[in-house]
Amino acid sequence: MSNLRKISDIVPLRFENGKVIWLNTKAIPWKEEYKESRNYEDVAKAIETMEVRGAPAIGVMAAFGVAAAVYNSQGNISELYDVALRAIDRLSKTRPTAYNLFWALDRMKGKASTLLSDNVSPNEFRQELVNEALQIQREDIEINKKMGEVGSRVIKDGDVILTHCNTGSLATAGFGTALGVIRSAWLQGKNIRVIATETRPLLQGARLTMWELSKDGIPSKLITDNMVAYAMKYEGVTKVILGADRILTSGYVANKIGTYGISILAKYHGADFYVVAPTSTIDRTEAKDIVIEKRKPDEVKTVLNLVDITVKDVEVLNPAFDVTPPELITGIITEKGIAYPPFKESLKKFIQESG
Amino acid sequence: MSNLRKISDIVPLRFENGKVIWLNTKAIPWKEEYKESRNYEDVAKAIETMEVRGAPAIGVMAAFGVAAAVYNSQGNISELYDVALRAIDRLSKTRPTAYNLFWALDRMKGKASTLLSDNVSPNEFRQELVNEALQIQREDIEINKKMGEVGSRVIKDGDVILTHCNTGSLATAGFGTALGVIRSAWLQGKNIRVIATETRPLLQGARLTMWELSKDGIPSKLITDNMVAYAMKYEGVTKVILGADRILTSGYVANKIGTYGISILAKYHGADFYVVAPTSTIDRTEAKDIVIEKRKPDEVKTVLNLVDITVKDVEVLNPAFDVTPPELITGIITEKGIAYPPFKESLKKFIQESG
Repeated sequence: MSNLRKISDIVPLRFENGKVIWLNTKAIPWKEEYKESRNYEDVAKAIETMEVRGAPAIGVMAAFGVAAAVYNSQGNISELYDVALRAIDRLSKTRPTAYNLFWALDRMKGKASTLLSDNVSPNEFRQELVNEALQIQREDIEINKKMGEVGSRVIKDGDVILTHCNTGSLATAGFGTALGVIRSAWLQGKNIRVIATETRPLLQGARLTMWELSKDGIPSKLITDNMVAYAMKYEGVTKVILGADRILTSGYVANKIGTYGISILAKYHGADFYVVAPTSTIDRTEAKDIVIEKRKPDEVKTVLNLVDITVKDVEVLNPAFDVTPPELITGIITEKGIAYPPFKESLKKFIQESG
Repeated sequence: MSNLRKISDIVPLRFENGKVIWLNTKAIPWKEEYKESRNYEDVAKAIETMEVRGAPAIGVMAAFGVAAAVYNSQGNISELYDVALRAIDRLSKTRPTAYNLFWALDRMKGKASTLLSDNVSPNEFRQELVNEALQIQREDIEINKKMGEVGSRVIKDGDVILTHCNTGSLATAGFGTALGVIRSAWLQGKNIRVIATETRPLLQGARLTMWELSKDGIPSKLITDNMVAYAMKYEGVTKVILGADRILTSGYVANKIGTYGISILAKYHGADFYVVAPTSTIDRTEAKDIVIEKRKPDEVKTVLNLVDITVKDVEVLNPAFDVTPPELITGIITEKGIAYPPFKESLKKFIQESG
């Protein structure tokens, strides 16, 4: 059986000849539409409007935005360095919560600074920043496959896995984080079933995760967000596996709104709760708090701006994320291994290793 | 302040000159559309398609269906009795979970049997069954107001109340169950805020509850179903107040899908969890289990059949209800008082009183 299993090979983000090319995930599942631009402002808008979303994908996309800015600019390296800084500044203001964004932009900035001190040629400056962005992309896919290998060890034959939002190829440079773990277990021939929440307001679970799971042929069922406790009780969910947008060294995890509630329901029903994220998601600033992005009311008052679902002038809450405390988390799966409580120590070890 | 407060006075169901007239709640909030029919089959369809929904409203609507069947039929009382039985049989097959449906139909059947034994005239038979249905309607409104009075005692100035689905005028003959309690507290001048879940798949919270709360001017915010834990943590929810479709004498409560999860989240955050329902919702059969209605996949795969939100052939779960265990319930508010744990004893007292 396992030999017959294949998974789809989606490349949602590319950088070619100075152009950033991205799969517009807002059009999924209705249309596979690729967009492209040489302009970092377009790249920033694509992140803000969530045409590209998912913490690792945002990081890669932002790096591509910086690469495009420099690739398509003239001038000496000091001028190119300023272009890079402007692009980094703009891109860093797109979304406040996902840590990978800042991690990737810091890496691009570090590279640009080094190139400036090294006084390379303008052409070399451009090429090296493009290479750095492509390297971030390649590493993301490698890291995802590694997380898949590491994480699949906790998945047993017969597991019923609940996942939230989208953490697959469409949230990364490819393969996926939490969905990558599920894919790895599936490719190993394990007999698993997946339950995916639709993930209002933007329905990434219904639109993106079910699209990916269907392509791969992994047995799966879609539920509305308020069916999680029902699924745990009556469908025998054994594990929750989902992603993260920012992880504090204390073990607090920011992820798509709804995650915190799911962690409480998992605890109540005795299901394991695993977070899957590359170590680039770990906030090394020793932050105590996480800024939670509040998005526009229309996302809640409509469905994808296609249907008004409530009275015109009502107030809404629309936090894009929530924060899950460490005591509700079984383990955090990274490319360097699985961190178990106490996370303060296990996570620190992972980020110290990476220098 | 309290003297200035008024609430809207919606009459969603009427019986006039042999016609059942109902507000089509599927058209709310876009349109206030009343439909009418003399035919019990149309009444049954209106319940099945959820043009009329909410346990108490279904009970009244079904009684009206029986009344219409008899009112619009010719024949002797034995023939009219058969018409009533056929209507009752059909109407009892509309939705399996709400207990008020069976309670109201049993009451109509009992009345029909008595009239048959009393050998009344055909005209009297018709008129008495219409009166019985109108009496069920009148009692429902009275009972709702009584529950409002009883329940509002637990609501304090400053309470932030989370509610789920719709339990207002649109779920009853008028005023509402859980929303009736909120209305009563508001009319008493209490300073409260309401947070309403949108309640996928059919969005009764976003469409109906926010429509009612807006009309009444009660401060309220709409959230998606996956924001409940967030709202409890960051918006200071002090109480959950919601309805019930069936209550077992053991204290297990069937209500709109999502209720069970909310009860777990309330416990975790230390918020009180109150169920509001007339004693006609209590299943007197000493049942151990509750049949949970599974509805069509399209409700989950689309939003109100207006937007496809996922891949064509995916599997879904679509239970219309879930079951909350007694240990997660603070109190059950009825027209006879508030039942507190152990519910086995407190609920029994309430149904014994009603004979």
